[in-house]
Amino acid sequence: MTTDAPSNAPSERTRLRRRHDRASYDKETIHAILDATMICHVGISIDGQPFVTPTIHWREGNRIYFHGSSKSRTFCHMMTDAPVCVSVSLLDGIVLARSGFNHSVNYRSVMLFGTARQVEDGAAKTKHLKTFIERMFPGRWEELRPVSAKEIKATKVVWMEIDEASAKLRTGGPNDNEDDYSQPVWAGVLPITTTTDKPEPCPRLMEGIAEPDYLRAFKA
Amino acid sequence: MTTDAPSNAPSERTRLRRRHDRASYDKETIHAILDATMICHVGISIDGQPFVTPTIHWREGNRIYFHGSSKSRTFCHMMTDAPVCVSVSLLDGIVLARSGFNHSVNYRSVMLFGTARQVEDGAAKTKHLKTFIERMFPGRWEELRPVSAKEIKATKVVWMEIDEASAKLRTGGPNDNEDDYSQPVWAGVLPITTTTDKPEPCPRLMEGIAEPDYLRAFKA
Repeated sequence: MTTDAPSNAPSERTRLRRRHDRASYDKETIHAILDATMICHVGISIDGQPFVTPTIHWREGNRIYFHGSSKSRTFCHMMTDAPVCVSVSLLDGIVLARSGFNHSVNYRSVMLFGTARQVEDGAAKTKHLKTFIERMFPGRWEELRPVSAKEIKATKVVWMEIDEASAKLRTGGPNDNEDDYSQPVWAGVLPITTTTDKPEPCPRLMEGIAEPDYLRAFKA
Repeated sequence: MTTDAPSNAPSERTRLRRRHDRASYDKETIHAILDATMICHVGISIDGQPFVTPTIHWREGNRIYFHGSSKSRTFCHMMTDAPVCVSVSLLDGIVLARSGFNHSVNYRSVMLFGTARQVEDGAAKTKHLKTFIERMFPGRWEELRPVSAKEIKATKVVWMEIDEASAKLRTGGPNDNEDDYSQPVWAGVLPITTTTDKPEPCPRLMEGIAEPDYLRAFKA
């Protein structure tokens, strides 16, 4: 059974070489960043050639899950016990300092190492896909027609333990050289946020279908 | 000299194995996606171990540029003629279909392969960093104190040709199985956008410094 216990000390792969002040190995921080993002970038190496593929992820306990086509090259390669590096990042702002050199960005990122496993059992796959949909849109799964055996077979559900992971983040305003604070130039942060807009119904929506509550819960 | 000529046919690495309908090898499309994103994910492989590092990028002509600390492991490894894979992606919406299986996301992504080179000359480095700042904030570079030789020495400016690249994108509403259109469930797109918020001035801002025009140009 996996728990949300605090992460261990950094491994050789996750230990931050530079900017230790921005590092965190705390599970709560790592989980929060994974939960705040939808797209991750999965890195694999095939005969020394790196491939970085964007894919959707979600978290259950101390595991990160992905799903994709059974034929996906990345997913098939991951099933060979290959080392995997997963990276997620959120840009929170552009930091305008008083020198070009001290310009920066505010961000939250996670880098995660390990090997991947797939969920073999069809019923278990279905359960995880339901969790994924329900986390975003509570109540939607029961509104959909049941998934077919063929659809489940065509879908790989893959997971990795969140054991060897590090978060790196920056918040706050510019950190200028003390001498530079007297420069007559604007300095501060241009915040960046990701939001949802008004839902766009499908032109072939059945008559009488109202916009569901779970969509209204998103900030417009 | 690099030009904005159309990309060549896909290489073995960039040819999309699945969902060919979502692929584009057109330079204009690839450049537009690179220009619409600020963060990319750089993949390298060290002794078979993949590392995926988020970093800021910008484009000049048919080259993608990065900058970072001279001591960065990723940047140092890239200088050994190592194969590099760069991935950028933009999430544009969540596509809610009438079956779980046909749920999707709208996105724009680019995958780019090649090897990296660094700008050696200090004056040339400065010129590229100026281009980077000026593209975001026109006029700002001249407002800042000049960069020092020490700062330029501590910064690597790295570039790759955008020769072996592919774009992959999805737009539009749900594509349901014909039988599923009669399902009594909401279907459509929840659009996602990234925007800037009101600039937050540094608490130590010099008196009398107004918010610059180039910040007002950003959508709040």
